[in-house]
Amino acid sequence: MHFVIIGGDAAGMSAASRARRNDPAMAITVLEMTEDVSYSACSMPYVIADEEGDMETLIMRAPAVFREKQNIDLRLGHRVEAIDPKNRRVSGKDAGGKPFEISFDKLLIATGSVANMPLIPGHELPHVFVLKSLDDGRRVKAFIEEKRIEKAAIIGAGYIGLEMCEALTERGITVQLIRNRPELLPWLAPELSAAVDTALREKGVLINHGCTTERIETHDSRLDICCREACFDAEMVLMAIGVRPSSFLAKEAGLELGAAGAIAVNRSMQTSHPDIYAAGDCADAYHVVTGEKTWIPMALTANRAGWAVADHITGRPVRMEGVAGTGVFKIFDVEVARTGLTLHEAEKAGFDPVEVVVKTYSRAKTVPGSRPVWVQMVGDRQSGRLLGVSMVGRDNEARRINAAAVALHARMRVVDFSTTDMAYAPPFSPVWDPLLVAANQLLKKI
Amino acid sequence: MHFVIIGGDAAGMSAASRARRNDPAMAITVLEMTEDVSYSACSMPYVIADEEGDMETLIMRAPAVFREKQNIDLRLGHRVEAIDPKNRRVSGKDAGGKPFEISFDKLLIATGSVANMPLIPGHELPHVFVLKSLDDGRRVKAFIEEKRIEKAAIIGAGYIGLEMCEALTERGITVQLIRNRPELLPWLAPELSAAVDTALREKGVLINHGCTTERIETHDSRLDICCREACFDAEMVLMAIGVRPSSFLAKEAGLELGAAGAIAVNRSMQTSHPDIYAAGDCADAYHVVTGEKTWIPMALTANRAGWAVADHITGRPVRMEGVAGTGVFKIFDVEVARTGLTLHEAEKAGFDPVEVVVKTYSRAKTVPGSRPVWVQMVGDRQSGRLLGVSMVGRDNEARRINAAAVALHARMRVVDFSTTDMAYAPPFSPVWDPLLVAANQLLKKI
Repeated sequence: MHFVIIGGDAAGMSAASRARRNDPAMAITVLEMTEDVSYSACSMPYVIADEEGDMETLIMRAPAVFREKQNIDLRLGHRVEAIDPKNRRVSGKDAGGKPFEISFDKLLIATGSVANMPLIPGHELPHVFVLKSLDDGRRVKAFIEEKRIEKAAIIGAGYIGLEMCEALTERGITVQLIRNRPELLPWLAPELSAAVDTALREKGVLINHGCTTERIETHDSRLDICCREACFDAEMVLMAIGVRPSSFLAKEAGLELGAAGAIAVNRSMQTSHPDIYAAGDCADAYHVVTGEKTWIPMALTANRAGWAVADHITGRPVRMEGVAGTGVFKIFDVEVARTGLTLHEAEKAGFDPVEVVVKTYSRAKTVPGSRPVWVQMVGDRQSGRLLGVSMVGRDNEARRINAAAVALHARMRVVDFSTTDMAYAPPFSPVWDPLLVAANQLLKKI
Repeated sequence: MHFVIIGGDAAGMSAASRARRNDPAMAITVLEMTEDVSYSACSMPYVIADEEGDMETLIMRAPAVFREKQNIDLRLGHRVEAIDPKNRRVSGKDAGGKPFEISFDKLLIATGSVANMPLIPGHELPHVFVLKSLDDGRRVKAFIEEKRIEKAAIIGAGYIGLEMCEALTERGITVQLIRNRPELLPWLAPELSAAVDTALREKGVLINHGCTTERIETHDSRLDICCREACFDAEMVLMAIGVRPSSFLAKEAGLELGAAGAIAVNRSMQTSHPDIYAAGDCADAYHVVTGEKTWIPMALTANRAGWAVADHITGRPVRMEGVAGTGVFKIFDVEVARTGLTLHEAEKAGFDPVEVVVKTYSRAKTVPGSRPVWVQMVGDRQSGRLLGVSMVGRDNEARRINAAAVALHARMRVVDFSTTDMAYAPPFSPVWDPLLVAANQLLKKI
């Protein structure tokens, strides 16, 4: 059995390692187009924030370990250009431009996602960056250090854009956040989005809402980032307007695409060709709340899906229940967490949803350090089910969100969630955990 | 309808307030034997720790508010001495020693729990304290301040004993912790208990294991706390060896007692007499893991049970699913959290349990501030169910425990819990949350 994997990051290397553990004899080949495998991309903002930070520490396992200790044929600089499902072959070019062709018995496409880059005038300037690959991270870090950047513009307010607001501010760089929408985080209730907005401004981030960047111009070593109404001055631009699935190879090979143009997979991670799997950011997934397909690229999902592929090809039972869309990020001391559906998403999915937004406190009021926490909770009038939760807080409490995520997996009703036995001690929470306070309020509306 | 409540703390006042909200016309009488109602007893260690702390700030709602705003006939200093279920009457004496007798249509017994005090020689000395009521808190705080206490002994290592180790140390008092068991927290795996032990010693707490206190002697203003092998010197003693349900009145009235001698209640919080309810620390509860009765007195349970009683007597549907035994406490920067059953408890309950103990990290290793976290997880070989989790950590992560508590309420299998979509961002967790790491390990053993 020859197991070939296209892509050597989270999903690809998880699958390779687990396949090796499951079957010491299997031939395993990984084709990675860059020179990097198995790194913590999500940690890049934290290394950039740290003057002493070394991007190379983000490499979780060196290529030599995969090759020598795990007997995985890991080929770097190998770009796959075509998949031939019928003849079970992949072909492409290596770093030197030399063509290669490899046969497989089972194939995993783990090509990840690519950062969106709008094709506006100036997007190709050397001062314009994205932050997706480890090489992107190296370039950004080297640029801000070598050029002693004092002012940067970040376009977009996704996880990466916001985390980089913190990272660059920590480096003493003035950050202009440029946002095409009129609000910072449109999927949050206005009170929650405003709390994040305030926290950013407190730290000196300049936020410009409602500006769609139309062009980027250079003047000496400086840039003008121009929207219709105004231009903003900076020395570099980070384009952080999201990612899209890297599903081109699969599409060309005639494999079915699913949610958001990601590769459609079943509950065993098989594509429309049973010997070809997809996992990680390039694949879609089931949503545990709707039961429908969705595309929410996350590191945990990629790792888990990689394992599932390895288990399935080695004959172990696999059934991927799906994702709840759980996510968390921190900007300075503000944490934002979510799981499940927003009110709008719930409406679109055909529920009859209702929402509450509550402000409560992170600890007993009698204990020092208690901070406000906002909880936004959505339930379904018809079934009584809990559909989603978002939280904004400033006291290390975003870890509470997992309680709601587990409830979504269990398809709990709000009433059942509201009677769960959550932990209480004054330094941790009020007697009623913020999630319980929200659930009690939501019950009155359902 | 006359609703009479014995006891004016968490369960009693929650019931009174909710009954009033549910029914503006109902006659509600609360008989409280002390002069205090509705206070946050769990916060007392934090007020004692703070030189400026004022015990009176722990009163959540003043008696006047209950009386004037909520029209509740709240009678302080009223000690009930007998319940006559047949004639629906309670009788007792007021603060002046004057007898009273009151008829009820519905009665709630919310008499709470009492601190255990071993009847050893010296237990009645004025330097020997418990910390249960607000008056206990006032006495302890006044004593350490007026006598300028420099050395204290704490007997027992429950939540209160350990929290008071921190509180007194914060006040510059040297603490001797005296423990009859050979280990600090016998319900934790040795690695987890040792981590807590180390954290206490780092802060200067002197821990003496395996010492059963046999007598307390005075020498001038100093005390000798004597075990068989040794005597320890201190100026005050805090006896923190647990609590027992205050179920004497119910027993005398012929009501059925249940787990641990607490008042037996059904899923509507009714005792063996359908018009008499019990709630809070004096009542037992169903355990969501075993389905059997248990007695785990907690503030949230008391508040929730008080609401349930009010709902039931006003004709609303009530079904108390039960408790998971979720608890959390903090000593200095160490947090300990648990939910569900330990291995030993699971064996006793008739499961075929298996356990893992894993040490992992609180954040991505690449991010500053990552600290070790231990997770102890118990599952059932036969059903595959998750039965319990304990955690010890030092990075504000005990809030993770609620995810496991929710899973216990949902009667989730370990395999299902292991595939839940938990939040990941480098400052919050490794890609695999500590609970998922433990679940993955436990799966291999089930």
